[in-house]
Amino acid sequence: MSANPESFLSKNAKVDERAVESFPNSQKIYIQGSRDDIQVPMREISQSPTLVGTEKQKNPSIAVYDTSGPYTDPTVDIDIRSGLDHLRKVWIDGRDDTEELEQFTSEYGCARMQSPELEQIRYQHTPLPRRAKTGKNVSQMHYARQGIITPEMEYIAIRENQKLESYQEQDLLHRHPGMGFDAEIPEVMTPEFVRDEVARGRAIIPANINHPEIEPMIIGRNFLVKINANIGNSAVTSSIEEEVEKMTWAIRWGADTVMDLSTGKNIHETREWIIRNSPVPIGSVPIYQALEKVNGKAEDLTWELFRDTLIEQAEQGVDYFTIHAGVRLSYIPLTARRMTGIVSRGGAIMAKWCLSHHRESFLYTHFEDICEIMKAYDVSFSLGDGLRPGSIADANDEAQFAELETLGELTRLAWEHDVQVMVEGPGHVPMHMIKVNMEKELKDCQEAPFYTLGPLTTDIAPGYDHITSAIGAAMIGWYGTAMLCYVTPKEHLGLPDKDDVKEGIITYKIAAHAADLGKGHPAAQIRDNALSKARFEFRWEDQFNLSLDPDRSREYHDQTLPKEGHKVAHFCSMCGPNFCSMKITQDVREYAKNQGIDDMQSALEDGMHEKAEEFREKGGEIYSKVS
Amino acid sequence: MSANPESFLSKNAKVDERAVESFPNSQKIYIQGSRDDIQVPMREISQSPTLVGTEKQKNPSIAVYDTSGPYTDPTVDIDIRSGLDHLRKVWIDGRDDTEELEQFTSEYGCARMQSPELEQIRYQHTPLPRRAKTGKNVSQMHYARQGIITPEMEYIAIRENQKLESYQEQDLLHRHPGMGFDAEIPEVMTPEFVRDEVARGRAIIPANINHPEIEPMIIGRNFLVKINANIGNSAVTSSIEEEVEKMTWAIRWGADTVMDLSTGKNIHETREWIIRNSPVPIGSVPIYQALEKVNGKAEDLTWELFRDTLIEQAEQGVDYFTIHAGVRLSYIPLTARRMTGIVSRGGAIMAKWCLSHHRESFLYTHFEDICEIMKAYDVSFSLGDGLRPGSIADANDEAQFAELETLGELTRLAWEHDVQVMVEGPGHVPMHMIKVNMEKELKDCQEAPFYTLGPLTTDIAPGYDHITSAIGAAMIGWYGTAMLCYVTPKEHLGLPDKDDVKEGIITYKIAAHAADLGKGHPAAQIRDNALSKARFEFRWEDQFNLSLDPDRSREYHDQTLPKEGHKVAHFCSMCGPNFCSMKITQDVREYAKNQGIDDMQSALEDGMHEKAEEFREKGGEIYSKVS
Repeated sequence: MSANPESFLSKNAKVDERAVESFPNSQKIYIQGSRDDIQVPMREISQSPTLVGTEKQKNPSIAVYDTSGPYTDPTVDIDIRSGLDHLRKVWIDGRDDTEELEQFTSEYGCARMQSPELEQIRYQHTPLPRRAKTGKNVSQMHYARQGIITPEMEYIAIRENQKLESYQEQDLLHRHPGMGFDAEIPEVMTPEFVRDEVARGRAIIPANINHPEIEPMIIGRNFLVKINANIGNSAVTSSIEEEVEKMTWAIRWGADTVMDLSTGKNIHETREWIIRNSPVPIGSVPIYQALEKVNGKAEDLTWELFRDTLIEQAEQGVDYFTIHAGVRLSYIPLTARRMTGIVSRGGAIMAKWCLSHHRESFLYTHFEDICEIMKAYDVSFSLGDGLRPGSIADANDEAQFAELETLGELTRLAWEHDVQVMVEGPGHVPMHMIKVNMEKELKDCQEAPFYTLGPLTTDIAPGYDHITSAIGAAMIGWYGTAMLCYVTPKEHLGLPDKDDVKEGIITYKIAAHAADLGKGHPAAQIRDNALSKARFEFRWEDQFNLSLDPDRSREYHDQTLPKEGHKVAHFCSMCGPNFCSMKITQDVREYAKNQGIDDMQSALEDGMHEKAEEFREKGGEIYSKVS
Repeated sequence: MSANPESFLSKNAKVDERAVESFPNSQKIYIQGSRDDIQVPMREISQSPTLVGTEKQKNPSIAVYDTSGPYTDPTVDIDIRSGLDHLRKVWIDGRDDTEELEQFTSEYGCARMQSPELEQIRYQHTPLPRRAKTGKNVSQMHYARQGIITPEMEYIAIRENQKLESYQEQDLLHRHPGMGFDAEIPEVMTPEFVRDEVARGRAIIPANINHPEIEPMIIGRNFLVKINANIGNSAVTSSIEEEVEKMTWAIRWGADTVMDLSTGKNIHETREWIIRNSPVPIGSVPIYQALEKVNGKAEDLTWELFRDTLIEQAEQGVDYFTIHAGVRLSYIPLTARRMTGIVSRGGAIMAKWCLSHHRESFLYTHFEDICEIMKAYDVSFSLGDGLRPGSIADANDEAQFAELETLGELTRLAWEHDVQVMVEGPGHVPMHMIKVNMEKELKDCQEAPFYTLGPLTTDIAPGYDHITSAIGAAMIGWYGTAMLCYVTPKEHLGLPDKDDVKEGIITYKIAAHAADLGKGHPAAQIRDNALSKARFEFRWEDQFNLSLDPDRSREYHDQTLPKEGHKVAHFCSMCGPNFCSMKITQDVREYAKNQGIDDMQSALEDGMHEKAEEFREKGGEIYSKVS
């Protein structure tokens, strides 16, 4: 349970082997952009051929979006003690609007760097921080609004396309038109589209100049739906080592961003280890650390202390901050009659501060001061929903919506500073009350990306809240939410361990992908089609390898049919050989083919309803050659 | 893996102890109806008091719908060798429209009863079958249309009400108005409403006169959403004993009906053991057994053989039959270009038969003959969707919808015989294409209850298809589907074991309950409210006990905080003591109370927006007493 710094920093310390294994039949590929140093990673899953009689028909490799970073590239030596390469450094340097500082600006940060007591747990290669030159604004939104397409934007366009063009000639591209709610996803993603979406605030690229290790990604409703995984210790449990492992584990399974929500010991050092080893953007809730600095006494928080914490974290490289600036003094009474009061930790802390001092929240009154910090490092806002409902009973109440309106006001203010913004959302909401959340957010916050926690669609299933919330998450993702914050099975009960992290992530990849299909993202259905074709053709290995979790699908299959020979069997233990509908269907097709399939197929190829009707009418005749 | 009949029938054989344990802090209660023998079971969960200072405020016991039958009644002696009591016998006898036969009508059934080789695995107390007297129709729909309220209907009205009236005076009744799609759920359920819904075909009561052991339940969109669990062996795995265990396990966790889909050995005997011990309706797919009788050769099936199988199963007491009568010869070509062909086992079998004989399906041509059998025993139709899509690519295609239209035609035909009908639905459907399935079913099948498998909202997550499908199931349940057929994590990969059965059921209870909240079922939110109140007040034990799975919620909590003292702690390991938002909120409320809460509360009790506005404006003044 407790940290064991010696073992962590020892020569033998390395990332969990399970997190660096290649996925089966997969290889890391890189798509090059307009310049040599734009190398966009994807995971390409190769497939076995389809057997048609004795003939082998080739099946294409399928490229999938890959969040796992260099960990799954066997050509990269991973050593968490020296961190990841600084992929974006040359881009940042090239813009010539930042400068390297001689030391950390934050007093607290300097003290942590210098304390001999922390030697044993401190990351040893912390780079010097960068900051915008005086008068400069280094946010991606600022560049976008100047009409500049950054390398980050081009990288993202390639990444979102998922090699769509390479499937153009194949059957796998067949897809249903989506029904996005007001989504406008282009058939082919271009750097210019990315720029435009960022400029108008409909998407953000979380990319702190002090986090040059990241592989750029975007959050916006005209792109693939993203998911976030929360990690972080608490005072009760977990160590730095475990948290770094959770991060590498989370990105292996598909976390697009990771929030470090540590509230226990050594928050500064834990975060440093995580950032230096993370290829995905890292988010944080600075008020948590600020509270630790005042020993848990909310009333002792001050703007100055909070400001120092923001700068400390910005200079470490946190890519987005959750700031609960919408919890205004006057909204707190609106929560008094709630079933579950204030369930956001940040919201509860600020409510306590406001009441204790009988003053407006310093996050609200100093909001523009915060913007000044954000734009000097390109930290994005995640405007926190401190008054989100914590139970079905409290859903969509006045407190929640009053705060949302304030978040809209703050969004406009941040945009005046060209600071990137996403807006956080609930929480616990029954199915029929979800859509209005999305609609109100789009209206009040002028289409800034929505980033929701679930929502959980019922309160009665602790232990299964990844599922209660995946239902709501898929729905709100389909309605237009840009990023879904995962919920693990331990929600409400305890701190998630690695297994819980994986379960939460796979569950949320499902919700996000279901939403992408619903919205009709051009590349989304390729993987479904490939997997279903493999399933129908009894290519079991391909089916496992194409799945979100090859380990589990293989394990479940092998529990009853472990032999290698079963991997080509035309049945599984679910139905047995005589009752496998897919096998029977293939028999039927084979049979029909021998007996007059040509008529059938040519008619169907026309695809005309009239033709099909005619078919139905003369049904008997088609099979006139049959016995 | 293989059956071990000796151990199964031995004196020591009994139901798994885990299936007969009482739930924690729960007791079985029975609500009496208008006659002594209407005793409707519920599970009542008692709660600990709320501590307000030193004062204890009582919290009410919460009655929840209980599918577990006598197994969780400690006053009942369970012996699976002698089966359950014949609860409905006196009601059936009282109607005086049935007669006891001297032996089984089915040739096959008689042979199985007499074969000495089966002595070791045969259930020993099989009752003689009953059948309608000549010219009589014994379906609940027939009674309903005569204006008769049966004891079954009254029982169901009490059961669906869930003791709503007893919560009337309490805060727990607070609920959001639902947004049912065309649902008309009454505030208080009456026997007359039940009768009316059955009469017009909008709901069914599956209740074979040869299954007098059942506790009556109803399937219809103006009632609580129900779930079905599939069990049954396959040729590859499982035994009779395991299947009976799966049934008792399934109903413990909330299965409203159970389908025995056995396709392996000893199907007749397996089913007998299940029915005699099942307090919930049992469904089957008779074509499976028929196929076994012809050694897996679909082309050897005949109407006569199938008819004998229907009667065999009807006289054992199967409550509903899945009949794939909508797979017409002329629709089969429509599946030729599909990604995954025909994925329904029954559908694939019938397609093979039709093609082999070049004839219309005997299920379709003999549909009225089947109706004659159904009404003599009150077996309900579950009109099978043999052409449901097996992949996202095939969703809502012409084959699927052509079959659905035929199912509508067959529904009307069955209703002419006063035979109860529900209609099966897909399958694999992306989110944006789900609603039209419900709308089309309501229109084509004139509001007969819809009974769907999922639908799965993506194909890419084998191993997690309980989740991919729960998303679709919750949505279609909210739109109006009456019963959801569960999907387990083993779907597509293997036969589910007991753990998978439980995982599938809890997942589907979540989907069904989320849908009930969405529809605004009057009693649905009581349990959410009670659990959330317990959560907010740190009554951990009550939170566990009120949850769908008390075992898991307790286990997850105890992984990090195992001590008894932690069960009253005002935090958990997720956030630790300083960061528990619920704790901070309580501190805030306590603080506010000492400083002028009265103003706050009286204003909020008015609940007027104006008042709240006024509050916001004079925000500062409310807390003027604060420091």
